Amino acid sequence: MAHMTDQEIATQADIRPIEEIAEKAGIPYDALEMYGKYKAKVDIHKIQGDEQHSKVVLVSAMNPTPAGEGKSTCTVGLADAFNKLEKKVMVALREPSLGPVMGIKGGATGGGRAQVLPMEEINLHFNGDLHAITTANNALSAFIDNHIHHGNALDIDPRRVTWKRVMDMNDRALRQVVVGLGGVTRGVPREDGFDITVASEIMAVLCLASDLIDLKKKLAEIVIGYTYDREPVTVGQLEVEGALALLLKEAVKPNLVQTMEGTPALIHGGPFANIAHGCNSLIATNTARKLADIVVTECGFGSDLGGEKFMNIKARKGNFAPDALVLVATIRALKMNGGVAKKDLGEANLEALKLGIVNLDKHIENARKFGVEPVVALNDFVTDTDEERDFVLDWCKEQGVRVSLTKVWEHGGAGGTDLAEKVLEVLEMPQNFHHLYEDALPIDQKIETIVTEVYGGDGVIFTDKAKKQLAEIDRHGWGDFPVCMAKTQYSLSDDPALLGRPKGFKVTVREVVAKTGAGFVVALTGDIMTMPGLPKVPSAVNMDVDADGSSTGLF
Amino acid sequence: MAHMTDQEIATQADIRPIEEIAEKAGIPYDALEMYGKYKAKVDIHKIQGDEQHSKVVLVSAMNPTPAGEGKSTCTVGLADAFNKLEKKVMVALREPSLGPVMGIKGGATGGGRAQVLPMEEINLHFNGDLHAITTANNALSAFIDNHIHHGNALDIDPRRVTWKRVMDMNDRALRQVVVGLGGVTRGVPREDGFDITVASEIMAVLCLASDLIDLKKKLAEIVIGYTYDREPVTVGQLEVEGALALLLKEAVKPNLVQTMEGTPALIHGGPFANIAHGCNSLIATNTARKLADIVVTECGFGSDLGGEKFMNIKARKGNFAPDALVLVATIRALKMNGGVAKKDLGEANLEALKLGIVNLDKHIENARKFGVEPVVALNDFVTDTDEERDFVLDWCKEQGVRVSLTKVWEHGGAGGTDLAEKVLEVLEMPQNFHHLYEDALPIDQKIETIVTEVYGGDGVIFTDKAKKQLAEIDRHGWGDFPVCMAKTQYSLSDDPALLGRPKGFKVTVREVVAKTGAGFVVALTGDIMTMPGLPKVPSAVNMDVDADGSSTGLF
Repeated sequence: MAHMTDQEIATQADIRPIEEIAEKAGIPYDALEMYGKYKAKVDIHKIQGDEQHSKVVLVSAMNPTPAGEGKSTCTVGLADAFNKLEKKVMVALREPSLGPVMGIKGGATGGGRAQVLPMEEINLHFNGDLHAITTANNALSAFIDNHIHHGNALDIDPRRVTWKRVMDMNDRALRQVVVGLGGVTRGVPREDGFDITVASEIMAVLCLASDLIDLKKKLAEIVIGYTYDREPVTVGQLEVEGALALLLKEAVKPNLVQTMEGTPALIHGGPFANIAHGCNSLIATNTARKLADIVVTECGFGSDLGGEKFMNIKARKGNFAPDALVLVATIRALKMNGGVAKKDLGEANLEALKLGIVNLDKHIENARKFGVEPVVALNDFVTDTDEERDFVLDWCKEQGVRVSLTKVWEHGGAGGTDLAEKVLEVLEMPQNFHHLYEDALPIDQKIETIVTEVYGGDGVIFTDKAKKQLAEIDRHGWGDFPVCMAKTQYSLSDDPALLGRPKGFKVTVREVVAKTGAGFVVALTGDIMTMPGLPKVPSAVNMDVDADGSSTGLF
Repeated sequence: MAHMTDQEIATQADIRPIEEIAEKAGIPYDALEMYGKYKAKVDIHKIQGDEQHSKVVLVSAMNPTPAGEGKSTCTVGLADAFNKLEKKVMVALREPSLGPVMGIKGGATGGGRAQVLPMEEINLHFNGDLHAITTANNALSAFIDNHIHHGNALDIDPRRVTWKRVMDMNDRALRQVVVGLGGVTRGVPREDGFDITVASEIMAVLCLASDLIDLKKKLAEIVIGYTYDREPVTVGQLEVEGALALLLKEAVKPNLVQTMEGTPALIHGGPFANIAHGCNSLIATNTARKLADIVVTECGFGSDLGGEKFMNIKARKGNFAPDALVLVATIRALKMNGGVAKKDLGEANLEALKLGIVNLDKHIENARKFGVEPVVALNDFVTDTDEERDFVLDWCKEQGVRVSLTKVWEHGGAGGTDLAEKVLEVLEMPQNFHHLYEDALPIDQKIETIVTEVYGGDGVIFTDKAKKQLAEIDRHGWGDFPVCMAKTQYSLSDDPALLGRPKGFKVTVREVVAKTGAGFVVALTGDIMTMPGLPKVPSAVNMDVDADGSSTGLF
């Protein structure tokens, strides 16, 4: 296996017809809409079961290296481990975005012996969900510009259209554009920009809706901009929520696939956790909760990003609680947090490891702040030394936190049974979950709470722009929403260079935007951008496909 | 039926599982990739059969009214009529674009009792083909801008990037844009614009490729712009044809669906005929030719647009010939060509009909210029009077052209058996097909030939810009390509106001662009635009979807 790519391993896997996986999951055949032989959409109205009986295991992580710390791999491996222990388990993941696939990541479906299948289809187009979201988002943009062009009855101020177009691509040249150029027949000129599709409010709406009707209701509540009198204009006023919901009627159904060991997996919704709320759909999670005794789900990046948002946004909107939290850590990431440069991470460095462990310490503390007991999954790498491993394992024991050396990349579920057993211990404990703030707390204080409690900072600096936006949010009565922070994934602070467990810092909030459809307020910090760029040599140049459609280059 | 919408009729149809349709068509089960219960992609490598045994019936039309003349309806109805006559028949159609669906058309899957099913899915997202094309097109744009941003090793002149972005939407505000604004981290500023996806060269490439490998070869040959030294830069030089082909590996497979009477239908590829070459994919047509004795296929708009391009581009690239040509005509369109305003088309007007019939006359002449014998299908409307019908039928008989009053909208295949029998007479005749020009004829003379022979004009005026572009095309050795005219569908000329059978006009070619991947040269005439706009009240505002996913507003 040493010289095989993830894609080669996936190709050799014994993939089962999706009907077989559905049967194992307890999904009736007539609830399946087949997408080829190995993927299906699931009609949630045909799924029976009580969500309350199920335990939810959330997989989060410490602050990662740019290459990631293997969180998807550990999530899949942990589910396969539960499967090996004969638990009725399902895994609920996010769908990959084509932008990173074409850019730097190649694929986003786990690795080694812990992958979801069919990896190629999941990484490319995957049942059209992201395309449907892109289309609905950009149809709305077209409807807005068309409304302004044809007389502008709603009095929309073209300078105050907040709804941006999107593309499921890393494309920096679209970050800031001017549209409507070229004269009267080409619309009204205005500044615009494209976000990556996963940052679209429609992605958030789809991930937080309980069903198609709730989706339509939330779509109608989206604010697309403001009138010349600075009053909000909604999708409902444009009367297109029906058309947008129609465009999303298939995308709203969760997608059933399988792990390499045949564990049923629902992959649905894909917001990033640095620029969006970072969790798979509530519909998929709840469907899995109805079907399985244990649901293993992940959220993006560390406990400061996807973790915090899972607790404060998804669990709040869905009115449920995570029963255990797995923190994925790697010796590489710990050393990076101890000051080692990326190129030197393959070399043993116990001193750096000792310095960097404070990062993990803060993520453990964060889990406990929400009343959820963490289990550390030390994701094994071939470059790790025994001395380094022992240090981390001993340190965890000293802190009184469960830890497991996890070898799911190499061994699949068998490499994660120790982890699974430790998680089972936590699942036996009484639930003690709570959010970090109440709905009624003002937005600025919610942000303050996240920064001081979760990031470990001293406070928040709001720019003048952000202060004005906060006042407007208050005036419009949107102060009860939870907050969705946009922040770098590399640091607990808003500065990607501050590694380890930074202290004494303040976080600058440069912009605050209400997403009234999704029902949260986004706070933008640092120079985080909602449209990534491609690297000098994108992974696309290594991709190819042959006559029978089999491909290479997806890693 | 009088008060039912097409969508209501479609919903009540007895739709059969797609496996049944495949079996009827002779497609083996293991060649099917299911997309739900009623749609499948077909693996063409698993289809046996000799393309030469099949007869191809091309459905074209006279110049239409803005509401269309029912060409898709007649195409479906004619295929169902052959089915009723117990012929082994398949129908090959283009896929709808979401732009017109959201804008003015509602749906594009036929009407009344002559529709393809499932109409809702075909009109929306349909197996992701157009989304894959949009994605590949825009990925290429991102790769180009990324290349320029990261040092521009190929020396691409940002002012001479000819590759445009696309959106499957009617969105006039995107016709002319500036991208790359906002400083160093946001790319290199340049002028750009969006076409509608169906106008993408990738759509043309997909429609003219013989298989996935040929597709990749053609993608590599696409010219995306020019260097500062005015030398062409290709996709092959950017080394991304593998990634683009990978993105298109499912889209390249034809889609199997059914008519309301269970006739197998392949719907694949969807270029418009006014701004692109206007025919469904060669792969789908050839697959249908392998399987059926008679293939009924349509091309967009009149014999001056899709008809001419089917003959001079598709038939040439595919090395086959149409065996008969059906010309769809309506009394409404004939009256419009006789000078009646759109709002008055419902009123009897024999004098206008007599004036407008010259339009049909020219389309009959055009078919015969290619050596293909036409059959006129007079598509019946409730507002037509007996006197009007008799005039058209008598006139056709006087001209020595076969004609049939066609009632497929009301009666399905049963309303088209007379038409089918007349087409069968033509299919018995010896084939006499020829193109209108040879490859070696210079581009300007090819355009001249089309304008004088097909449009009935006196000649062509090339703008100075077009003349320079012709010289460059010649210099680069692209003079052997056929020509793809971009022209209004409403007139035989380049002026939509010149109805009937205009004479004494010249056509102005304002721009000439080589599409080196598709292998044709586009000549832009009049003010035809490659990105449509939405009407003041888009059909989207009438669309809705309910809890179980059933929809309204798709007509």
